[in-house]
Amino acid sequence: MTSSYVETPQTVRLALAGCGVVGGGLVRLLHESAPAIAARFGIRFDLTSVLVRDVNRERNLPLEARLFTNSLDGFLAHDADVVVEAVGGEEPARTIASDALRRGKKVITANKGLVASHGDSLSALASANGTGLDFGAAVGGSAPVISTLRDLVGASTPLSVRGILNGTSNYVISLLERGVSLETAIASARERGLSEADCSRDLDGRDAADKLAIIAWIAFGTQPTGLHIRRTPLVPGLERLVRIAATDGARVRFIAECAQLPGCRVAAAVEPVIVASRSAFGRTTLEENRVEVDLGWASPLSVSGPGAGGRPTAAALLSDLLRVSPPPNDRGAGATRFLSATTDPREHRWLVAAAIDSASLNGAAADVGLRSERFIGDYLDAAVITAPAPWNSVERLIVALELANARPCVARYENSNEGEVLQ
Amino acid sequence: MTSSYVETPQTVRLALAGCGVVGGGLVRLLHESAPAIAARFGIRFDLTSVLVRDVNRERNLPLEARLFTNSLDGFLAHDADVVVEAVGGEEPARTIASDALRRGKKVITANKGLVASHGDSLSALASANGTGLDFGAAVGGSAPVISTLRDLVGASTPLSVRGILNGTSNYVISLLERGVSLETAIASARERGLSEADCSRDLDGRDAADKLAIIAWIAFGTQPTGLHIRRTPLVPGLERLVRIAATDGARVRFIAECAQLPGCRVAAAVEPVIVASRSAFGRTTLEENRVEVDLGWASPLSVSGPGAGGRPTAAALLSDLLRVSPPPNDRGAGATRFLSATTDPREHRWLVAAAIDSASLNGAAADVGLRSERFIGDYLDAAVITAPAPWNSVERLIVALELANARPCVARYENSNEGEVLQ
Repeated sequence: MTSSYVETPQTVRLALAGCGVVGGGLVRLLHESAPAIAARFGIRFDLTSVLVRDVNRERNLPLEARLFTNSLDGFLAHDADVVVEAVGGEEPARTIASDALRRGKKVITANKGLVASHGDSLSALASANGTGLDFGAAVGGSAPVISTLRDLVGASTPLSVRGILNGTSNYVISLLERGVSLETAIASARERGLSEADCSRDLDGRDAADKLAIIAWIAFGTQPTGLHIRRTPLVPGLERLVRIAATDGARVRFIAECAQLPGCRVAAAVEPVIVASRSAFGRTTLEENRVEVDLGWASPLSVSGPGAGGRPTAAALLSDLLRVSPPPNDRGAGATRFLSATTDPREHRWLVAAAIDSASLNGAAADVGLRSERFIGDYLDAAVITAPAPWNSVERLIVALELANARPCVARYENSNEGEVLQ
Repeated sequence: MTSSYVETPQTVRLALAGCGVVGGGLVRLLHESAPAIAARFGIRFDLTSVLVRDVNRERNLPLEARLFTNSLDGFLAHDADVVVEAVGGEEPARTIASDALRRGKKVITANKGLVASHGDSLSALASANGTGLDFGAAVGGSAPVISTLRDLVGASTPLSVRGILNGTSNYVISLLERGVSLETAIASARERGLSEADCSRDLDGRDAADKLAIIAWIAFGTQPTGLHIRRTPLVPGLERLVRIAATDGARVRFIAECAQLPGCRVAAAVEPVIVASRSAFGRTTLEENRVEVDLGWASPLSVSGPGAGGRPTAAALLSDLLRVSPPPNDRGAGATRFLSATTDPREHRWLVAAAIDSASLNGAAADVGLRSERFIGDYLDAAVITAPAPWNSVERLIVALELANARPCVARYENSNEGEVLQ
């Protein structure tokens, strides 16, 4: 219905500061996703300038060499609709963001330190210049923490927001739980691209504290630089805590929390917490992030997803890019790309119950070419778990059992041990 | 930093069609949240007209009687910036939405049937008239399913989206698992306001199928009316399935799923699935909704929250209202309302480990006024779990143990059985 988009996509000029893991990941993602973005949003992102330290470095990116510059002044003077800040750290990130906002450009960043330290002044600068600052990629990795909190603000002030906000430390803890040493776990996090050479900010909670300051700002309006955060580092002591928790049937999780106190005050902490192994946080393993927002409802509102690494962060930056780009009202309503399939060829295990004995049920299954893996119950109340088969085989069994007046009922069967470990 | 908002809030004129559980809930929420919305968004929602069947019915709402009308024509002719459609069903919901969009008004709805049946044509109408249609409240209850999917579209096409999309049926299943009869469970859902008098659309999967059609539309661009959904009703057979699953250490969940097939085709199903009790879906109980988006990343992106009832739906409508209202770039960056507390008076259990025996640890704890509840380990490697106490008591213990060279480490302790049941 919006196929005209494909013919005349609107161009959004993009300047990118920084081309490391995050910036380079965004370049790749923009390149791969260009056809889909044009088809569904009517937008073409045109990368017009990329600020890097070394313009001669080989980066293996789908970009013309002439786009790279190492001149900050040249980069800032360059015209663009949106500036993506992906250099990280304090400077020149802050100069880039504030200069771009002053010139009326939109700024998108994944730099939690920058937002935690200067988010309120940068946001005020954006308002004053009629433009916007977005930082959804700064917190939660791929999990939509910031947008979820923003959507709630106004409707409901949370009682508390708590979460696993640092994928690297959660990955390290998960490996310790599997018997790996701290050194090896840290080396593994580095190898997997989850952590920089120095992961002290991950393990001492400063990274999570920056993110928590941003969360408290959005959720409660507390000034990020003014938030007092109690912070208990994971090391030394982590290996001991993991061992003690295990003997207690529990797990250590590095949880960041901000909570309402009486009198419009907010308490904030980043600290190890011993949680039940089966709790939602206990089951959050490896680099996954998870945030729970307690609104005093029947259950908390929660979001989770992979929280570290270039791809999720680049995807979160692209989400922000699409959110600030016109036309805002047509999102998701673009050209149809997928068609509905009338049959589903995928194979699953199925549980079929019927008011017959298991031998008869086995026979009926065999008649339609279904292999039985296991039976539950028997005389006049048997259930079979089939080998993986497509729905239409099972449908034939159901029809046959209905004709035989055996009152069948059916469910997909996913209670494999495999599923239990993975989920 | 945006305190000027408080002085001159921008007025958004709102017309509300329908004033039942959802519409009435929104009226109450708008009333309660007005000061917060003015302070943080600089917006005042001005309810200018409310379409109802019976203008004389007592509703106990903070609204002037003159705002109510039972004239559809009068309501449609009324001027407003945004129309909230909360009448439900097919007509006059469709007329209200299409007429409002034709007049260039923004439309917000929680009506999944309307969006599943006419979402694509209404969305095209919105585009043609330079306005927007939003329906984040139609799927997922309070869980931000639609906005999460929209933010992903373009960046990544999911491999699959699967979820528990109907809070009423999940509530009924949860009660059956606790030994309640189907009749009693359904009556209980009605009493709690989770279900209408007739809950057949909840239990036969039509409600979830409508939501799944919307999800597949956003995620894959498949036309909602053209999506073939395999649908296996829960009844008859649900009680039998719940019983069989229990003997197998598993649970029944009513899962809606759409998944990519080769060749840009999409398979879709709403059906009972037997899942491991400890899996994320197995642990989704009562009226909670949960959606998992598989992007081929390390773990799925997932969102969950209470999925039925007036309050979550009203909050989701308000989220959409705030999203379509100006100024879009200042959200969450409003006036500071909460202050940071330098001390945290809340009491928690704490685990403190130290390189001393448990008797000495008990003594050290008693010296700072901490009560010990339980000990783990002993000689030169003891850990105590304290009775609930504020952080500053525990901090005193840590300092004392450090002075005694006992190498303490500390974690908050939440591994109570209570926590295990609740989380």
